[in-house]
Amino acid sequence: MSHPRVAGVGLTHFGEHPERTGRDLFADAGLAALDDSGVDPDDVESLFYGNFMGELAEHQGHQGPLMAEAVGLDVPATRFEAACASSGAAIREAVKTVRNGEADVVLVGGAERMTNIGTPAATDALSIAADDLYEIRSGMTFPGAYALMARSYFREYGGSREDLAAIAVKNHEHALENEYAQLRTEITVEDVLDAPTIAAPLGLYDSCPITDGASALVLTSEDYAENHGLDASVGITGTGQGGDNLALHDREYLARSPATAEAAEEAYDDAGIGPDDVDVLEVHDCFTIAEVLALEALGMYEYGEAIAAARNGETYCTGKLPVNVSGGLKAKGHPVGATGVAQVVALTELLEGRFPHADEVDGETAVAHNAGGTVASATVHVLEVVA
Amino acid sequence: MSHPRVAGVGLTHFGEHPERTGRDLFADAGLAALDDSGVDPDDVESLFYGNFMGELAEHQGHQGPLMAEAVGLDVPATRFEAACASSGAAIREAVKTVRNGEADVVLVGGAERMTNIGTPAATDALSIAADDLYEIRSGMTFPGAYALMARSYFREYGGSREDLAAIAVKNHEHALENEYAQLRTEITVEDVLDAPTIAAPLGLYDSCPITDGASALVLTSEDYAENHGLDASVGITGTGQGGDNLALHDREYLARSPATAEAAEEAYDDAGIGPDDVDVLEVHDCFTIAEVLALEALGMYEYGEAIAAARNGETYCTGKLPVNVSGGLKAKGHPVGATGVAQVVALTELLEGRFPHADEVDGETAVAHNAGGTVASATVHVLEVVA
Repeated sequence: MSHPRVAGVGLTHFGEHPERTGRDLFADAGLAALDDSGVDPDDVESLFYGNFMGELAEHQGHQGPLMAEAVGLDVPATRFEAACASSGAAIREAVKTVRNGEADVVLVGGAERMTNIGTPAATDALSIAADDLYEIRSGMTFPGAYALMARSYFREYGGSREDLAAIAVKNHEHALENEYAQLRTEITVEDVLDAPTIAAPLGLYDSCPITDGASALVLTSEDYAENHGLDASVGITGTGQGGDNLALHDREYLARSPATAEAAEEAYDDAGIGPDDVDVLEVHDCFTIAEVLALEALGMYEYGEAIAAARNGETYCTGKLPVNVSGGLKAKGHPVGATGVAQVVALTELLEGRFPHADEVDGETAVAHNAGGTVASATVHVLEVVA
Repeated sequence: MSHPRVAGVGLTHFGEHPERTGRDLFADAGLAALDDSGVDPDDVESLFYGNFMGELAEHQGHQGPLMAEAVGLDVPATRFEAACASSGAAIREAVKTVRNGEADVVLVGGAERMTNIGTPAATDALSIAADDLYEIRSGMTFPGAYALMARSYFREYGGSREDLAAIAVKNHEHALENEYAQLRTEITVEDVLDAPTIAAPLGLYDSCPITDGASALVLTSEDYAENHGLDASVGITGTGQGGDNLALHDREYLARSPATAEAAEEAYDDAGIGPDDVDVLEVHDCFTIAEVLALEALGMYEYGEAIAAARNGETYCTGKLPVNVSGGLKAKGHPVGATGVAQVVALTELLEGRFPHADEVDGETAVAHNAGGTVASATVHVLEVVA
């Protein structure tokens, strides 16, 4: 099988963009990716686009064709929505399309505008990723849901607020050198412990921020990349998707993410690798506890073991298994629909040696993990240096 | 290439379901499709699901996993949103997935709950399929947009309100025998002309209703259908998708639908047929004028010629080219996210000889045309009797 190559990547700054609409943001990222790729825009055959809350934040659905137009492309465009895994889902269908020979060049991306409606409305909009009928109407929000998962983890496996705080400290430190990141401030474990509680045991610094931003990738077939002499050494060699019940109360465990495990198993099989082959990861750390759950479900640690990883220095860019070298959702920011693609942007640049900390990170195999809701949806993609 | 077979189909009644949530509706349709197929539900590998306005009508995004759960499936699920072509987009990725050997059995469906929020709020929710910044804020709604298209058509090619009315009369007549249809009332051209104007030249009876409903298909690989002895004689042999600028003011013509033409060309090539091979169609008649634009862009008529088709009797189930034998969106109803799949449900049953008017319709090749917004998105699927 021929693996799609990542020919170009593009991002906006992640943060607050009060004067930029969603289409403005995506135009910036999409045009940057096209420019980075060296691909003739006329060769792009379709757009796979992720967005989560456009209906509520911008009174705008049907963003597929809108975003194609924003980057000047007259091509079929489809919008994928899987909550915070929206652009992970878009990558998956794009990868399948290219490797099955149905297109040689596609644009994949995502965008989200969130800060324009303010934090209370954004929190409400985010809540529609959970079960409205049985969770939201009972007063649940996402900080509350992840707090339940953290409490369950502590009870089942042990762990402490300090362990979680170490994850926030690490991801903030990673973000310091990432010029696209939202929170480029050094923090300490004490800062995290002293921050206001948002849903015990989680405090403000255990949570990712509300973010505006966009991301894009140009994927090409292997043949196209070679015939056009593109500088595209990274391929997406595995794709996987998992699903779970939407509501937490329908899960067997709160402290595990079987949808992630299912996606990982499929992606590793697809790429012909095992978890031990993975050198570096971007995982979906919407809250600090989420990084722990992700690393365990991805097979990087046994259940109950990942909680200490950041505290022990293992998941720093200088550690044995660098995780969220970009700063993660926690510090890079989390413009929901843009996140899955932004993870692949970071890993591609890292494998190509043009990302902050690239000289500290060894390896040729990377994993991107994108999750929706309380991990009712998960996508996993394997990236490898293939040329 | 092996063509996916339509192994089973399911629908809810299309109409008002004040006491049924979106998940209730989809459970009914999905379970009906599984039952109809004879497939072991454990064999289903993923769900491809279309929904348009769940965020606004039910405060519920992330419906992929929710709907998988509703039909009792523990499988990865993706929600597609392309306005009124949402489940057409879902069919397309499902077809690609099955024919490329990535799954043997998938469930495809869509659902929409609309009447619970009332007509003004539903009209507002529908408006997010157009360009919020440049169209909706100027006061445009969909009746207004299609009225502009009708006026432009009349100016460019001629035609009259009576011609359009004949389409409504035909589709109402077709719906009389469809027990799933919302508007099973016989109407006359005079009724249409005398109805209140909603956006001149369109009156109330030129428009489809606001509808709750759901639809589902079980698609299997050819090998699976044959190895399991399924009664699945209809295959989806061609898929196509087209795109256009979201806003009408960015189009070259208001009276043509190039996104439909693009989707049709791809789908016909894919199936190895030409427009002359098509025997029967379900097209996206959200307004009477939309049926005209669709038939021309699909290559069934020259531009300017389809306006008289219903009036001349040609597109009746008894005519030379039956169109919307189900009643179409106009009379069957238009639960937005369910519509694209419901068209394929109708055509499958028609080709299998178990749909109303099946004895009056000859042929083995059918086309389903689903459109989003003012046809900024379009999907076309070709169905053929293959076994």
